[in-house]
Amino acid sequence: MNAWGMGIASRVSAPPALSGSGKGKKVVILGAGLAGMTAAYELGKLGYQVDVLEARPFAGGRCQTARKGFTLQELGGEAQTCRFDDGLYINHGPWRIPLDHQSTLYYTKQFGIPLEVMVNDNDHAWVYMEDAGPFSKQRLRPAQVKADLRGHVAELLAKSVQAQRLDTALTADDQRLLLDYLAHEGALSAQDLVYRGRNGAGYAEPPGAGLKPGRLADPLGFRDLLASKVGKVYSAVQEFPMHATMFQPVGGMDRIAHGFAKRLGRTIRYGAEVQSIRQSPGQVTVTVRDASSGAVSQVTADYCLCTIPLSVLRTIDADFSDGFKGALKAVSYAPVGKIGLQMKRRFWEEDDQIYGGHVLTDLKAVNTISLPSSGWQSKKGVLLGYYHYALDAIEVSALSPAERAEFAVSAGEKIFPPYRASFESAFSVAWHRVKYNLGGWAEWDDAGRAQAYPTLLAGEGRVLLAGEHMSYLTGWQAGAIESAWLQIEELHRRASA
Amino acid sequence: MNAWGMGIASRVSAPPALSGSGKGKKVVILGAGLAGMTAAYELGKLGYQVDVLEARPFAGGRCQTARKGFTLQELGGEAQTCRFDDGLYINHGPWRIPLDHQSTLYYTKQFGIPLEVMVNDNDHAWVYMEDAGPFSKQRLRPAQVKADLRGHVAELLAKSVQAQRLDTALTADDQRLLLDYLAHEGALSAQDLVYRGRNGAGYAEPPGAGLKPGRLADPLGFRDLLASKVGKVYSAVQEFPMHATMFQPVGGMDRIAHGFAKRLGRTIRYGAEVQSIRQSPGQVTVTVRDASSGAVSQVTADYCLCTIPLSVLRTIDADFSDGFKGALKAVSYAPVGKIGLQMKRRFWEEDDQIYGGHVLTDLKAVNTISLPSSGWQSKKGVLLGYYHYALDAIEVSALSPAERAEFAVSAGEKIFPPYRASFESAFSVAWHRVKYNLGGWAEWDDAGRAQAYPTLLAGEGRVLLAGEHMSYLTGWQAGAIESAWLQIEELHRRASA
Repeated sequence: MNAWGMGIASRVSAPPALSGSGKGKKVVILGAGLAGMTAAYELGKLGYQVDVLEARPFAGGRCQTARKGFTLQELGGEAQTCRFDDGLYINHGPWRIPLDHQSTLYYTKQFGIPLEVMVNDNDHAWVYMEDAGPFSKQRLRPAQVKADLRGHVAELLAKSVQAQRLDTALTADDQRLLLDYLAHEGALSAQDLVYRGRNGAGYAEPPGAGLKPGRLADPLGFRDLLASKVGKVYSAVQEFPMHATMFQPVGGMDRIAHGFAKRLGRTIRYGAEVQSIRQSPGQVTVTVRDASSGAVSQVTADYCLCTIPLSVLRTIDADFSDGFKGALKAVSYAPVGKIGLQMKRRFWEEDDQIYGGHVLTDLKAVNTISLPSSGWQSKKGVLLGYYHYALDAIEVSALSPAERAEFAVSAGEKIFPPYRASFESAFSVAWHRVKYNLGGWAEWDDAGRAQAYPTLLAGEGRVLLAGEHMSYLTGWQAGAIESAWLQIEELHRRASA
Repeated sequence: MNAWGMGIASRVSAPPALSGSGKGKKVVILGAGLAGMTAAYELGKLGYQVDVLEARPFAGGRCQTARKGFTLQELGGEAQTCRFDDGLYINHGPWRIPLDHQSTLYYTKQFGIPLEVMVNDNDHAWVYMEDAGPFSKQRLRPAQVKADLRGHVAELLAKSVQAQRLDTALTADDQRLLLDYLAHEGALSAQDLVYRGRNGAGYAEPPGAGLKPGRLADPLGFRDLLASKVGKVYSAVQEFPMHATMFQPVGGMDRIAHGFAKRLGRTIRYGAEVQSIRQSPGQVTVTVRDASSGAVSQVTADYCLCTIPLSVLRTIDADFSDGFKGALKAVSYAPVGKIGLQMKRRFWEEDDQIYGGHVLTDLKAVNTISLPSSGWQSKKGVLLGYYHYALDAIEVSALSPAERAEFAVSAGEKIFPPYRASFESAFSVAWHRVKYNLGGWAEWDDAGRAQAYPTLLAGEGRVLLAGEHMSYLTGWQAGAIESAWLQIEELHRRASA
């Protein structure tokens, strides 16, 4: 901390300023996700001859957006083709750009990609718990839960302060200041320090024109709130990096992928599946199989930056040392599933006045139903019907696409009565079943961070690794980008030595 | 409350469904603000012959947006012409559409006016207090203040619960549930219930790629926070109707005024200053002076809906009863000032990572510096340099436009060092000095609500009143619209009797 606020100087918000030139040196980059494309873009500017090998027919890695015509066939699964109406989409990969991720925002600005607010915090969106004691199977507004719980807690503490019952080192002055704060924070009545509700919790009858002053909702009872445990859905503040202002690119997250791909042009070779990686003292040789023709060829380079997820890289034939190979196996990849559901009517806006944000729920394998932050007041919309991890993700991913949609609709209609009648089409992904990914993101444990992670970070010979897995921002685009920034600095150092 | 959440059925979200026809009946509407235009639009659909008399050369009333070429000459003041760059603007009248204001949102939807999120709550925007004890003249992130204060308070209460020191009726079970909640809400360590900071409060060193796990900021001290009183800037939840999701029309609030005006066309007569209002048993006669030619004419109608602000109406010659005239004087109008400052660089985004929202401050007569919620990452922006009321507004409004700009810049540069160097041009308004308004909005006191308000609501003879002043949503566009909906129902009832 300094007088100008939190020390943010250490935040990485621009690519490394590298001097010298990469002229005459060749780098092969494996994977045209955000890490690979960031590296290719920046190394290209330095004069390096760059080849990007991408197994898919399109760039972006997990930075994908499903809209009409987008296809996906999971390993061992049915082919899906997205049938959403024109203009509708789901970001089934990354879907949020936090303000803290200045590295991602560096490229949206560089590339002139228009942003819009992604409503990531909406105290007006329902919380719905099947198992919440007295509030089971009721739709509650988080604003009411927060206001009433904090009001009751402030009252409890204020009365204890007043009764001098606290075992505390606070002076009489501090206690007076604390009472002032509690009365304000909890909207306690000044006379008796009692919480009797507040307009931020909501109205039973809203104020309006004429003789309608409004009537406040009665507070939810303290003991009922405690018994419901619904207060544990929230906490004092949004955790990093979830706080406002959150962004999304206008039109879909893949605008970022397109921004890079357009600039890289033919630097990216599509349909190029890596079959093996070999090093000699002087160069790296990558064997590639063309996904459509099956033709096998070789690419040689002075250095290789490999951004292939470790979940996939550890299945590729490479002449890494045993230690390095062991490290590649030391991280697990998150099973993650998402489903987009096109609804022919925006009932969440029209009936419930919910504009974006997340409906949180304990409905099994749902977690959240998230409402779109674009197309306000338009006719149709695509919502996120579930977002699940771990065992939930594994179980649901065993279902066919149609069965997954039925699962999501059956859950959602418990919260929103018009859900089923409004449902038109679905597009789902189970990232652990997606070829070339085999998981949502890297999940390091403490042992892995201590041992395998530094090994992988150092790379081996002429091969360096980059990607979200090589960062403490796993699962975020910023992790991929900042990791690329870090590793091209190292690569340039080695190449310039 | 019912099982489906708060009782919102009583919210007025659509115009009254009126049966019958207004054919052959004439209504003169005074004022083409949102109340007058709402009434004209809905009565026109019913078949009434409607004339709207508007003193200004444009429609909208206070629903205005200042962009290049917009002019304003306050009473006794210099003429101002807005010199903002193309595409930049300030909503110097209403600037927010709360989700609770379904009446306003009814028309944005009807008219197809695109909306975007207006960031009304940003825990990452600075709070800056000159007088805040140990934190005086420091820029703090509200996220840190909220996280640390709530953490400390949760710890204090948790320890008291644990020590069985509370004078409370909570059972042992409830106390256990309370401890669980407090530990979660306040991010207390599970072992000893101590608050030691949390990532939602911010990082001293953010996590990143490579060997950067991040280092949390040390919590601000409890006693320092109490002494600073900075916790009183916020409360447990945003008060009604300030909570997310907040909207603004893309391109400026006057898009709503344009939406009505386009549909009403020549129904609105511009430059028509009302000079007198007279009633006979059978009709209403309004005398009008043409603002440009000075020509005086008369308009007769079966009914009159007068939406002129009471601050102005009470200065107009009308044959109201003494009781009604007395009631017109029973409300005060808010002195309100705003200033838009065009900045050639979005330093709040680029240097401080603040995207929209309000910088709250105790700098005299500033209250808030609000950052724009559009044009993210673009070059320039117009921010709101102050938003003040009451005595502050009266004092600053005595300054010339150039002096007001200097006042605002001198204040702002205390918080943002690049403020002065970035400043390009200003546009300010003091609503209490604006002809045809004479104030920002009606401010009723309890006595006025009890006595004068019902008198005015009932109207007199063939004259009914509408506008934000005839609602409990004073100062909001929704108050004007809902008041019009209420009064056209009454007018139609009388006309159909």
